[in-house]
Amino acid sequence: MAQKIDVAILGATGAVGQRFIQLLENHPWFRVAELIGSERSAGKTYGDAVRWNLDGEPPASVVDLPVKALDAQIDAQLVFSALPKEPAVARELELAAAGHIVCTNASAHRMADDVPLLLPEVNADHLALIEVQRERRGWKGALIANSNCTAMPIVMALAPLQQYGVSKIGVVSMQAVSGAGYPGVASLDILDNVIPYIGGDEENKVETETLKMLGRFDGAGVTMLDAAISASCNRVPVVDAHLVVVSVTLDAQPTHEQMIDAWDTWRAPELVRNLPTAPEHPTLYLRQQDRPQPRRDRAAGAGMTTTIGRLRPCSIFGYKFIALSHNTVRGAAGCAILNAELLTARGYFGDFQPARALQTV
Amino acid sequence: MAQKIDVAILGATGAVGQRFIQLLENHPWFRVAELIGSERSAGKTYGDAVRWNLDGEPPASVVDLPVKALDAQIDAQLVFSALPKEPAVARELELAAAGHIVCTNASAHRMADDVPLLLPEVNADHLALIEVQRERRGWKGALIANSNCTAMPIVMALAPLQQYGVSKIGVVSMQAVSGAGYPGVASLDILDNVIPYIGGDEENKVETETLKMLGRFDGAGVTMLDAAISASCNRVPVVDAHLVVVSVTLDAQPTHEQMIDAWDTWRAPELVRNLPTAPEHPTLYLRQQDRPQPRRDRAAGAGMTTTIGRLRPCSIFGYKFIALSHNTVRGAAGCAILNAELLTARGYFGDFQPARALQTV
Amino acid sequence: MAQKIDVAILGATGAVGQRFIQLLENHPWFRVAELIGSERSAGKTYGDAVRWNLDGEPPASVVDLPVKALDAQIDAQLVFSALPKEPAVARELELAAAGHIVCTNASAHRMADDVPLLLPEVNADHLALIEVQRERRGWKGALIANSNCTAMPIVMALAPLQQYGVSKIGVVSMQAVSGAGYPGVASLDILDNVIPYIGGDEENKVETETLKMLGRFDGAGVTMLDAAISASCNRVPVVDAHLVVVSVTLDAQPTHEQMIDAWDTWRAPELVRNLPTAPEHPTLYLRQQDRPQPRRDRAAGAGMTTTIGRLRPCSIFGYKFIALSHNTVRGAAGCAILNAELLTARGYFGDFQPARALQTV
Amino acid sequence: MAQKIDVAILGATGAVGQRFIQLLENHPWFRVAELIGSERSAGKTYGDAVRWNLDGEPPASVVDLPVKALDAQIDAQLVFSALPKEPAVARELELAAAGHIVCTNASAHRMADDVPLLLPEVNADHLALIEVQRERRGWKGALIANSNCTAMPIVMALAPLQQYGVSKIGVVSMQAVSGAGYPGVASLDILDNVIPYIGGDEENKVETETLKMLGRFDGAGVTMLDAAISASCNRVPVVDAHLVVVSVTLDAQPTHEQMIDAWDTWRAPELVRNLPTAPEHPTLYLRQQDRPQPRRDRAAGAGMTTTIGRLRPCSIFGYKFIALSHNTVRGAAGCAILNAELLTARGYFGDFQPARALQTV
Repeated sequence: MAQKIDVAILGATGAVGQRFIQLLENHPWFRVAELIGSERSAGKTYGDAVRWNLDGEPPASVVDLPVKALDAQIDAQLVFSALPKEPAVARELELAAAGHIVCTNASAHRMADDVPLLLPEVNADHLALIEVQRERRGWKGALIANSNCTAMPIVMALAPLQQYGVSKIGVVSMQAVSGAGYPGVASLDILDNVIPYIGGDEENKVETETLKMLGRFDGAGVTMLDAAISASCNRVPVVDAHLVVVSVTLDAQPTHEQMIDAWDTWRAPELVRNLPTAPEHPTLYLRQQDRPQPRRDRAAGAGMTTTIGRLRPCSIFGYKFIALSHNTVRGAAGCAILNAELLTARGYFGDFQPARALQTV
Repeated sequence: MAQKIDVAILGATGAVGQRFIQLLENHPWFRVAELIGSERSAGKTYGDAVRWNLDGEPPASVVDLPVKALDAQIDAQLVFSALPKEPAVARELELAAAGHIVCTNASAHRMADDVPLLLPEVNADHLALIEVQRERRGWKGALIANSNCTAMPIVMALAPLQQYGVSKIGVVSMQAVSGAGYPGVASLDILDNVIPYIGGDEENKVETETLKMLGRFDGAGVTMLDAAISASCNRVPVVDAHLVVVSVTLDAQPTHEQMIDAWDTWRAPELVRNLPTAPEHPTLYLRQQDRPQPRRDRAAGAGMTTTIGRLRPCSIFGYKFIALSHNTVRGAAGCAILNAELLTARGYFGDFQPARALQTV
Repeated sequence: MAQKIDVAILGATGAVGQRFIQLLENHPWFRVAELIGSERSAGKTYGDAVRWNLDGEPPASVVDLPVKALDAQIDAQLVFSALPKEPAVARELELAAAGHIVCTNASAHRMADDVPLLLPEVNADHLALIEVQRERRGWKGALIANSNCTAMPIVMALAPLQQYGVSKIGVVSMQAVSGAGYPGVASLDILDNVIPYIGGDEENKVETETLKMLGRFDGAGVTMLDAAISASCNRVPVVDAHLVVVSVTLDAQPTHEQMIDAWDTWRAPELVRNLPTAPEHPTLYLRQQDRPQPRRDRAAGAGMTTTIGRLRPCSIFGYKFIALSHNTVRGAAGCAILNAELLTARGYFGDFQPARALQTV
Repeated sequence: MAQKIDVAILGATGAVGQRFIQLLENHPWFRVAELIGSERSAGKTYGDAVRWNLDGEPPASVVDLPVKALDAQIDAQLVFSALPKEPAVARELELAAAGHIVCTNASAHRMADDVPLLLPEVNADHLALIEVQRERRGWKGALIANSNCTAMPIVMALAPLQQYGVSKIGVVSMQAVSGAGYPGVASLDILDNVIPYIGGDEENKVETETLKMLGRFDGAGVTMLDAAISASCNRVPVVDAHLVVVSVTLDAQPTHEQMIDAWDTWRAPELVRNLPTAPEHPTLYLRQQDRPQPRRDRAAGAGMTTTIGRLRPCSIFGYKFIALSHNTVRGAAGCAILNAELLTARGYFGDFQPARALQTV
């Protein structure tokens, strides 16, 4: 117990911050030790500062923790960031420079050349960018990002198909309101409605981050996947989970059964597979004609499995299907935690014995 | 007043039947004279038989009308059909053979070679198929169909662009629950959810009907538009109005402003333009970045205008945009009524003076 | 026509302000001449300042009007206020003192002894409080309030029953999200949920305002109805219209048919009945067992009719029933406009000929 | 393991039947051995027959079980019934007569004099009615009912207050759509809407079942609680969990803190407390001003805890508060399972050692 790694959470009172806290309750390796919030929250206990939006109550282990200001001293080496883009820009860099390992859900630095946009099942080798980053920036710490929550199911679904040559990707998303944080989407905007637009340059993020995550690390940097991609993003009246309609051109023209088999049998590299938060099935194909559905399938693999369905021919791209991920678990906090577990297993936290930890899982 | 054309409505108690009745209340040319329902309803008054699902109450003018059985004698020459596919197959043919002019919303005969799939603003000339139909089938009456409710906004949005050469069409729909009739979609299936599948071979209907409506009449038949098309259809928790995300390749590569201008200035042929149910703007481009939206824009042009928005470049197709139509008005009953108005103006109802009627509008 | 009365709208860009503008478009007596908004909006045109949340677009007649700051000079004698409580407190008093007739939807002054809480069909005689107000405060103008949107259907439904002696009133509300303004209720709070609490001391407002509106004017003030009342307020995932479950004790113990007859035949005083915004039926009893319903009945009487249903015995109170009003029409802007029409008909706007105007309606 | 008690489920493919199957997966005492469905399902495997409406997939342990017809031979002594009322009337009696112990969720026999309406935390002593039942009917088996899903949170919340003398109960419910089964409530009826009526004589059930459950067993029968009760039931757009607004008169006039303390410290009798499905807290008071809420609190105690909030004075009844229960867990299948566990612990299944079983929990 005493050997758990202390973690700090930046933006702890927001929607993604709450999800971090929820997912880290009883985590076998990590212990929430420090909470950092906005000026309005600083100085209060977490229980007083937070307007808890997830089910039930905040875990008893954090309600009495004090909330620190953004510029306060942080002791934990491992820092999870759920900051909005603006404050993230400077603070994450400072912390990484000061020796912290920052696993961030913020978009600020995702597309920087030397920042790994990490999805352990897909591109664990991109982690080597940390060495490039440290050398270039003179850091002792590191900055590792996870992707946009809508890029997530696309990348998860395409990774097992990369063996067939992905050359064109068309995506239309139907995204849950929790993706906009809290208070986020006004109920007057979304009841009995669809909003066919998502701010923050969402479509561009989905396009570029997808290609970076599926890209190839060549020792010095990541070469983005050479594929055409076009995304259209929409908000629908769903609480959690993003559904994407994907059209894809595969150069090798596999059969549908080959593709379904690729999804069902795809496994992460062994080191990743044994991480505490890694799902048994990173991807899972559902054979019912009307699945996956957000409400019924978002909990697959404790929110970490991407479910896929409705594979059929497309007269334009060749193939079309749908994919679904829980946007605040796999698409945000859960992925950042998995990233941190991979860093742990790779020995980035010297005073922790990942081998022993792995054995106990 | 006495000179209005009597109409009969098949399937009068269902969701689309109710919309026919609502839209025909106070219609300047047509008068609801006969209502045909299921066995369960036959013999009751309409007020007793119907479970009214639209706002308010059924119009006073119909509540005391008797509901007839499907095989009962029909006196009205003009028949609107809101039958489900199965009973529509045989009954519509019988009625057309017997001299009735049947304007149907059912899918049963839409793709038959000699049945016009009529959208007056787009393909009023397809009406000439009636002569082919009468000759081939030896009918005195006629059968005219309107399209699937999801094909409607696609065709409306593409018609003004046909001048630029439409060669590839990608569509993802987000469809309202009213498209499935009543009781239709179970609330347990759609609250906090999306159903990424629509039964009845919806995607195939959207693809084929779109190409037929945009096709060319050559005197003997309709040649379907020579374009590749792929549709993915989804149900969302929205009461009325279907939203489509359209990607399109236009051979002549117009500018965005040319396209917006095409939508904003597009007008129906003069005869159509003056019909009672024709909207001033068949299509209208909304310049806000997050419009059209189902709840806020479905009432445009009394439900007969297709609103369009978010035109932007697509790295795969060339262009992408969104379009919205009210599915039970423009996409069903409203279109069938407009079709019947066109038939009236063209003189298909001998005992009615369309010229005088048009003057009074 | 040229003689319409100019009106100014305070809080013109908010949710209720938008409803004022929508309802005043083409009003036979009033013309929107001045728009007052927040600091953020001041100096822009209305079209630029507003985030229009109602259906369609803001009326063309207002999009180019400039938005003035709250402290700017106002020329119009008639002022509609849709201000939030805080800024309303001082500004409404200043304007009334300066000679304006302020019809306010704000709660700030509703319970003041000398402010009429006016509902023309129910208590048109309370208007005489204006003379008390003017004398006591030395004003040339006046301040007239309309009630809380949830008190509205309760008062409308109970007014026709006052002849039977109302002594106990129990109320549970299910309120629409539009009652909280924009952005108001977060979608994360209300999708697949009920919030059993409404801020701003809602339950107390409902209780006290109901008793004041149903009270008796005795020449010097209003004596509140002497009845026990208890309200429980809830927010439900509905866009517009508040539904209230009412339990009531009536001393004279009328039959159910007497009560239904009272609702169906109740008419406003003649002067009120002929006002442009007055509905034909202030109250209407629906005999179906599952009506009224928010979505299907909120448009009754153009949003000004209170629909009532499900009258049945209550083993504790004696009677129970439900009632429904459109919260932003009858419960807010529509009522304030009706109030202003009553003031007009009573001659409060000297340069306007109410008699002629009434004849043209 | 081999010693688990086999159970049969009547109505296994319906909404409540599915919840039984979900909750019995990995149950420490019970094993699903037989599934009984409608004629349409009989002869298929469960996997083929069911349209699974809960999250994810049906448990692997049942998908290959055959579905039997309603009149088929049943081997299991313990039978859970999720039948609709009509078929339940006769079949449940036959099975009880034939020696089965039938724990039913159906309403058919709930109010029969000799059928225990069992809620273990509240009225475990009512179980003694079984002896009355057996004697009167000459049965070897037994029939035990659980209550209506809306009565459940009322009874749970009032039981700890019975010490203060409950004399008047006013209830308004806001009920989830899952209470109506599948397909149940049409989405066209409930999106952006409230239905202020629930069929099947719901209000009467809520009133009478509440009084029976809170009644006193006197050796020969149950004397219903002598209190006035009035219920108004409404359907809201919520997936799971019924919220009730309760007004109550307590003769002893306790303080609010006494009441909250009563709820927070209330525990089931020891035998009940140790049953596998019994929650640690049968009732729990939430101190936030806007809780409990259906979506956020329905999972409390794995769906078996009734959460309570907003206790405040009521000028008519004395007290008012809200209470929430998961309607298909605590309010249906979960309660029936808890009832069966109590029967097991009391030794009704001779070939099973409840003592050992209890030790292993």
